[in-house]
Amino acid sequence: MSYMIVVYDVEEERINKARKVLKKYFLWVQNSVFEGEITEGKFEKCRIELSKVLDLKRDSIYFYRIENKFNYKKVVLGIEKEITDNFI
Amino acid sequence: MSYMIVVYDVEEERINKARKVLKKYFLWVQNSVFEGEITEGKFEKCRIELSKVLDLKRDSIYFYRIENKFNYKKVVLGIEKEITDNFI
Repeated sequence: MSYMIVVYDVEEERINKARKVLKKYFLWVQNSVFEGEITEGKFEKCRIELSKVLDLKRDSIYFYRIENKFNYKKVVLGIEKEITDNFI
Repeated sequence: MSYMIVVYDVEEERINKARKVLKKYFLWVQNSVFEGEITEGKFEKCRIELSKVLDLKRDSIYFYRIENKFNYKKVVLGIEKEITDNFI
């Protein structure tokens, strides 16, 4: 189990599909950021699903895996999106 | 000294100003992500500068502070932006 911060930079036409996949595995915390704990198996599945909807030559997703989720602190400047399961 | 992952969600009209400030303090690694080591003093200065250019009721910047930069691993799916000092 790892805690991950996921940031994406995906072109407009594929953005909804990418978000849909990410929302299955992570919490949506800011426009282009997801967070959450994930197992290795689920992470593998998530990457496979994403590979199908992304154009890997144009889009990019960074997964920052933090070994211990107590090892990071989040400082927010401005508004903080409520963590919800809201639809896109 | 902390290592930070910085993600921003800033409205179009203020985005260039926000990026300009962030580029003074961090490396620009993806469209809406910066990374880098920063001292407490510089972080304070960075937030003050950002507060002047952002609309804190509409924009948001998340700073993920990682205590030990060896405590995270980055997995990239798709293209990886070269870390450069490129102009916007």
